[in-house]
Parts: sequence; structure tokens; C-alpha cells
Amino acid sequence: MSQGVEWAAHTLLNLAWSGTGELVPVAKLAEGNDLPRPYLNKQLQQQVKAGLLTSVPGARGGFLLARPAESITLLDVFDAIEGTDPLFRCTEIRQCGAVGVRTACDFTTACAVKTAMGRAEQAWRGALATQSLADVRAEADTRPVHEPDGTPRPGPAAPAPRAVCRPRRSTPRAAKPPAEEIGVAA
Amino acid sequence: MSQGVEWAAHTLLNLAWSGTGELVPVAKLAEGNDLPRPYLNKQLQQQVKAGLLTSVPGARGGFLLARPAESITLLDVFDAIEGTDPLFRCTEIRQCGAVGVRTACDFTTACAVKTAMGRAEQAWRGALATQSLADVRAEADTRPVHEPDGTPRPGPAAPAPRAVCRPRRSTPRAAKPPAEEIGVAA
Repeated sequence: MSQGVEWAAHTLLNLAWSGTGELVPVAKLAEGNDLPRPYLNKQLQQQVKAGLLTSVPGARGGFLLARPAESITLLDVFDAIEGTDPLFRCTEIRQCGAVGVRTACDFTTACAVKTAMGRAEQAWRGALATQSLADVRAEADTRPVHEPDGTPRPGPAAPAPRAVCRPRRSTPRAAKPPAEEIGVAA
Repeated sequence: MSQGVEWAAHTLLNLAWSGTGELVPVAKLAEGNDLPRPYLNKQLQQQVKAGLLTSVPGARGGFLLARPAESITLLDVFDAIEGTDPLFRCTEIRQCGAVGVRTACDFTTACAVKTAMGRAEQAWRGALATQSLADVRAEADTRPVHEPDGTPRPGPAAPAPRAVCRPRRSTPRAAKPPAEEIGVAA
């Protein structure tokens, strides 16, 4: 799976946190999780095409969720970025070679391997379809935060791996968005 | 998902059909579904390493299932070829950028996006793990075959797509396996 799905999920979450009707420019979305703006912009267009985002052009334009976070599922996010082709691509090799030329087989029913792999894929897609962006946002909102004196509150799980972020760049003050405006970390 | 998973599933099925204890040379396995022998050979080694196949070297050597088809699952096949890395690779972008630097977050719990994607992946892996090679073989064995006069028996599903097989090559008679010896089409 491409890294684009991770980008899309976090960008949509940031928009969900930013509030309904709030237009967020691509520069701010890119800075939200330090993503390369040109690639992110292409990806945002895919999400507009898929009906997840609304885009408003112009100097004061930007992106906002096209529908409530409750009605955007993780399956919508995946399909917007990766398309709806199955993970397992059956090329019908059962019809090829010494096995394939056996005249007793007429191949009118689906390949048994494809059918079995498809069952697993349906389970996966079903589990993605039952989890909305609002569910993920709610789960992220329950994570522990620092105490007011800076001491981390103990969490139930082991610390997450360190992120490998891109080197921090100096950006003009005016272009740097206050983090609070575009969301919190998932 | 790479095409290797399709190759592996069909090759293992062919070995399951060939009978217990039957050593099948790589040339015969490759011709079974018209697969390129050098690539298939590399893949067979991966399956030996994963404990799915046993390999016997030498002129009379070949491959056979390392354990009964009932105890080889589709998850075993997938993991042998693709490894056990998750489909969704979380790079912790929540820790990066303007959102990531918010000091209120301590990241001691897993990313909510990763957790949600992981749930779907568990559903998928679970469905792969509950389907054995023997199950797939049994399902393949129920597919319609031609009537004795060559008329296809009507199947319940639409015809499968035509396969795009490699051009048929002329092979020495001695090297061409009888199809019956290495399986039937899935």
C-alpha cells in the first residue's frame, strides 16, 4: 500500500479537527504533518474527485471536507488513493500451461484461488467500511497528553516508534500556521 | 500484492493434486501454469524457507509439500511470498510538522490511524488463516467440466476473463509433463 493512504488519512483528520466549513489552504495542510506540498496537492485532487473533499480555488481558497467525518470511511480514503482494484490480481494462470490446456475444464466459474483471496479481501474492506473518520478522530482524542508541568502522563502502551520527519525548514512567520488551527496529532 | 502470490498458490495447489510424497521437478511446475522457470525457482526457495515445501536436490530431485494441504493456509502462502510486514505502513507522520510539534501530545499510545487500519488488516489475515490449501483444492474440484461430447456444462457464474498466457513454446517431448500428473486447473 502506498504511503499516500497515510497522508490522506491524516490530512482528512486534520480537516475534521479544523471544523465544519473551514477552508484550509494546501500550504497549511502540507505543513500540518510536514508533507511535500506538490505531491500532497495532487493527492488532494484525487480526494476531491472521489467526493471526500471540496476545493475552492483562488487566493483565499483551500480545501474542506465534502461531507461530515461520520460519513467518510477508511474504505473511502483507501479507494480514493489506491482505486478499487482488488489487492489480489488474478491473471487466470489456471488457464495457461500444461494444467490449463486440459480439455476437461471449461472455466465458467471463478478461479478457486481468486474466490478464496476475495473472501479475505471482503473481510478487510468490510472492516475499513465500518470505521469512519469520526471514529478515528474520537480514538485519537482519547490518547494521553502531557501534564500541565510537562510530565508525560503514563500511557497503557509502549511508546510509539520515533518518526523520521523531514528536516525542519525555516518558513516565514506569516506562512506558518498555528498548530491549533489545523488539528491535533492522531 | 505481487503476482508471486498467485503463482505460489497455484504451484502449491498443483503439488497438492500431485499426491503426497511425489517429488515434482521445477521444470514441470513451471510448465504446469506456464510460469518463467528462473523466477519460479527463486520463489520456490522462499516457500522452502517458509516451511511450506521440501526440496530434494539432484537430477531426480524436486519439490513436494512439506506438510499436508490441510495445514497450509492462504496466510502462510501470502507471508512466504510477501513477508509479514503490515499492508499499511505507519511512518508516524503524526509526530511531524506543525501538528506533530504540539507539546500537548506525548505519543505513548499507538497512532489512531494505524490502529484502525490494523483492525482491518487483522480481519483480512484472519480470513486468510482460516482457508487452507485443502479448502481451495476442494472448491476447485467442484467447478463444472465439459460434458463427454465437449459441450460445456452451464456454470452458475459468468465466464471467467480470458487468460493472457505466454505464447506456447515447443518443448522437447521428454521435458513436457503429462498434465494429469501435476494437477487440474483451479
